[in-house]
Amino acid sequence: MMNIIKGGVTAAKGFQAASAAAGIKYEGRTDMALVYTEKEAVCAGTFTTNVVKAAPVWWDKELVSKGQKVHAVVLNSGIANACTGEEGKELNQYMAEVVAEQLTAKNEEKTILPTQILTASTGVIGMQLKKEPLAKGAVLLQEALSDSIEAGTQAAEAIMTTDTVSKQAAACLEVDGVTVTVGGMSKGSGMIHPNMATMLSVATTDADISRELLQEMLSEIVSDTFNMISVDRDTSTNDTYLVLANGQSGVTIEKGTKAYDDFKEALLYVSESLAKQMAADGEGCTRLLEVQVINCQSKENAKQLAKSVISSNLVKTMVYGKDANCGRIMCALGYAGVEFDPEAVDLTLEAEGENLLLVKNGVPADYSEEKATELLGKDKVTVFCDMKEGSEAATAWGCDLTYDYVKINGDYRS
Amino acid sequence: MMNIIKGGVTAAKGFQAASAAAGIKYEGRTDMALVYTEKEAVCAGTFTTNVVKAAPVWWDKELVSKGQKVHAVVLNSGIANACTGEEGKELNQYMAEVVAEQLTAKNEEKTILPTQILTASTGVIGMQLKKEPLAKGAVLLQEALSDSIEAGTQAAEAIMTTDTVSKQAAACLEVDGVTVTVGGMSKGSGMIHPNMATMLSVATTDADISRELLQEMLSEIVSDTFNMISVDRDTSTNDTYLVLANGQSGVTIEKGTKAYDDFKEALLYVSESLAKQMAADGEGCTRLLEVQVINCQSKENAKQLAKSVISSNLVKTMVYGKDANCGRIMCALGYAGVEFDPEAVDLTLEAEGENLLLVKNGVPADYSEEKATELLGKDKVTVFCDMKEGSEAATAWGCDLTYDYVKINGDYRS
Repeated sequence: MMNIIKGGVTAAKGFQAASAAAGIKYEGRTDMALVYTEKEAVCAGTFTTNVVKAAPVWWDKELVSKGQKVHAVVLNSGIANACTGEEGKELNQYMAEVVAEQLTAKNEEKTILPTQILTASTGVIGMQLKKEPLAKGAVLLQEALSDSIEAGTQAAEAIMTTDTVSKQAAACLEVDGVTVTVGGMSKGSGMIHPNMATMLSVATTDADISRELLQEMLSEIVSDTFNMISVDRDTSTNDTYLVLANGQSGVTIEKGTKAYDDFKEALLYVSESLAKQMAADGEGCTRLLEVQVINCQSKENAKQLAKSVISSNLVKTMVYGKDANCGRIMCALGYAGVEFDPEAVDLTLEAEGENLLLVKNGVPADYSEEKATELLGKDKVTVFCDMKEGSEAATAWGCDLTYDYVKINGDYRS
Repeated sequence: MMNIIKGGVTAAKGFQAASAAAGIKYEGRTDMALVYTEKEAVCAGTFTTNVVKAAPVWWDKELVSKGQKVHAVVLNSGIANACTGEEGKELNQYMAEVVAEQLTAKNEEKTILPTQILTASTGVIGMQLKKEPLAKGAVLLQEALSDSIEAGTQAAEAIMTTDTVSKQAAACLEVDGVTVTVGGMSKGSGMIHPNMATMLSVATTDADISRELLQEMLSEIVSDTFNMISVDRDTSTNDTYLVLANGQSGVTIEKGTKAYDDFKEALLYVSESLAKQMAADGEGCTRLLEVQVINCQSKENAKQLAKSVISSNLVKTMVYGKDANCGRIMCALGYAGVEFDPEAVDLTLEAEGENLLLVKNGVPADYSEEKATELLGKDKVTVFCDMKEGSEAATAWGCDLTYDYVKINGDYRS
């Protein structure tokens, strides 16, 4: 059993964070963040499946796949360092180098190498970073490092782009009287259709867990959490989720134990919470849309159906307009690429504990349009799609499509 | 060689059309259309791939696959007759029956059967048609039948929903001094991502061509035209494209002849023109976006890449905002599901004959933002994506995503 706690990347033992106003692109706000563990950590990661990958994605993928133990993740907002060619790769490496240098200076006992620093960038694609702000940022970040909850929150704020709120989650579990903690932060609001969005997430834990086991657990969790959200069906070039485990709780996590189950529950909670916070803060959106496909033949089909509905522009505008045009939900199920019997499907709308049957056996039920509009007006709206063909289920999260999405993306760069 | 001519479904010899204000759902406008040929026609068709199919789609699919020769297509706007169960299927058959009855009464020589009448519906999903308006409409349609160009135009107007303009195209060719004509009409503005949208298209020709050859030609043409447009990535429940050939020109079209090539060119022109007219009239849109992927390894890859770019909400809002944020185009290429070398890609913007290189070898070129904004402001904007890996190419058509799309779809039913 796990407990939800306050905090983010600094919740777990031994992790510090910092933010800085480096002047990457934005003015008058922070735009770099650092997550640091003095004790080196094993690291698992999942990355964008986009063929066009940002420079930091290439960097991290290589380090994570090699099993490199790491000391830090440095992140910047404003510039995504994607579509930046060789120069972009050099600047990414420079970002790791200046941070490694600063951390080495701080840490008199040992040298921290650039290859022990993971990197992440988010912002405009096709623009080059500049060296001066990166070097300045590295100094400021090193000076600001702290293990306080506030430092974690400030790091989460520094990586925001079009996000309107910062995103954190943390949970802990007890193993033989010892506390193990998992905490994380993420950013993401547009270009969100993770397969792995310009979504960046970092989670930290003081569990002692092997890299292989952590990666296996992470991949499984990501497919049910981050990969089940969509704001605009645009899979970004920068999607990155990194989990660092520094072992400082002294608790070892091994397969087949209760500790394993509890730890997985905690990592799942942190991941799902961060994913839902992103969907709820989708660009321009006014509410969170949850779609639960139930009684499906297979889990894979349930996921594909749920994702198809939350991704539909017509469903999203309908939710914005509070218009229960349920044919659009049926339509989005129908083009998901999965076979099913449309005349078996029931659709139920749920918000704040109230239910309303919209479709019975594929045909609109006799429901109150007023009640439907009322429920669709709540902050969180759930649609249950009962396929009546099996026992598998899946949940996906998205948001409504609004004038503001168009506004935000009609002139993002200006 | 073919010639583009005026007109639509009544351009070809022997075809008549009519429209009527039957009161299906709309008030104060026409909402039923009929295309009729006294001489029976062979028919080829392509239909939505959505698992949730409208009643008329089931009806037409069966008739077309059986090789049934037909006399007419009856179409209505306002109600899509999808998600309407058994009752919907009965009402669809009723629509065919009342039209058959009226046409039989008109045509003293022979009985026209309901199974010689194809049907098509577009509008709100999950609402039932009513018998009275259908019966009334059938009478009005029969009375109004005419082979004039105006009758064709009025039929094209009667099937509009959120369309802002009616859509027609026609072309003719000469075979041994005899003229063969192909004409068509379509509607479609939202829920457009044909695989086959609430898109309906009907083309007519007086060529004498076998059903098998017509179907083969149609399937090939649809994959390069209707299946290459997208307004909102929502594949509708009603997509239907029907081509009727009544042979009245007396010209037989057979494979391997010049007449075949010319006829195919004419049918391709009519199909592509109708498809582009739909994309240009996408719900709320202000301009037509064309994406040409060139020098690609395979045609299939080129199509997938082109369609990914025109379907991206971020590219669409960028075009609306006249902001050449070319990283979004690179991003959409990258998640198309096709492997390629991002660092080989060149992107060029074209409008009204002016070109502007945006991306060179995967990295933004040094272009004038002012010029880019100017070009993006034109009515038709083309993006060339040069993959530099082969010789295959494909073109896709879409439109920008605007406040008005959200407005139209936030309260479509009211």
